[in-house]
Amino acid sequence: MQFEIEKALPVLERTPQVIEALLYGLADEWVYSNEGADTWTPFDIVAHLIHGEKTDWIPRTQVILGEGSKVFVPFDMEGHQKEKKGKTMSQLLDEFKVLRKENLALLKTIDITNDSLDHTGIHPVLGPVTLRHLLASWVVHDLTHIHQLSRVMAKQYEEAVGPWKQFMGVLGGKR
Amino acid sequence: MQFEIEKALPVLERTPQVIEALLYGLADEWVYSNEGADTWTPFDIVAHLIHGEKTDWIPRTQVILGEGSKVFVPFDMEGHQKEKKGKTMSQLLDEFKVLRKENLALLKTIDITNDSLDHTGIHPVLGPVTLRHLLASWVVHDLTHIHQLSRVMAKQYEEAVGPWKQFMGVLGGKR
Repeated sequence: MQFEIEKALPVLERTPQVIEALLYGLADEWVYSNEGADTWTPFDIVAHLIHGEKTDWIPRTQVILGEGSKVFVPFDMEGHQKEKKGKTMSQLLDEFKVLRKENLALLKTIDITNDSLDHTGIHPVLGPVTLRHLLASWVVHDLTHIHQLSRVMAKQYEEAVGPWKQFMGVLGGKR
Repeated sequence: MQFEIEKALPVLERTPQVIEALLYGLADEWVYSNEGADTWTPFDIVAHLIHGEKTDWIPRTQVILGEGSKVFVPFDMEGHQKEKKGKTMSQLLDEFKVLRKENLALLKTIDITNDSLDHTGIHPVLGPVTLRHLLASWVVHDLTHIHQLSRVMAKQYEEAVGPWKQFMGVLGGKR
């Protein structure tokens, strides 16, 4: 599937709803449990998405299309720590929803053409990347974290499902 | 995490909303693309969830708690084929929502106690399983298919993300 902005936007627009439907108001055991040492809870994941809205996708779009240095600021994989501090899950979900809305409103003010999609920036690890790569990655990054959220939640019932584990793809099973 | 019906129900209740937010009204390329030969599209997955509502979770609960044979009817992994026939995605999403609502209303009429959760049925492949295993598996089965949906959708942008693929967990990357 080719990247087209009209087909990417609806996915980006829905992610806050998907994640809110999945997490809003759930018991703490669903929200604050992870997959083991050095892994993220759903609470961490939403804070990470917030950090991405603030420092990753739109700022890097502006770097690519701007007049200054083309080199991206490295993304801070610990940036969620300060985003989540003193917050509740419902605050994080609201904050993510507002930031995403603002960012997509901003994106819609930019003239996304086949030409601008070919403009490049320099990723500190990946090297030259196009605006097309960046915007497609924004979509897949959302999907990566929906994927992760479903896996982290399922993990909490790994014992509870008993012998069914072998049929549950999300727990490493075969279906 | 121990299985408790009050903590499982909210997850089961939200799944239709999660899936609707993820898929409703999306372009055909998101909805009718799969991961390659013998894999499912989002359309197939929703049809499979409908087939589960009709033949799996509640019917098997009734077998476990009923007076007759304790042996489950084998689940038909091709059952989605007839569920999807002649339907649109929006029809399937509505149908899943209605069936899930009816099934949870029915589940709430059943007295789920620590005693009834220990009752067993005979799975044709897994052997004896408890009602606790079955209901926990209903939750994890939902999460398995949310996990799969996010992966199938991400797969469509495998090329579009360019070098970012290596950072995208849902595409086999390391983050």
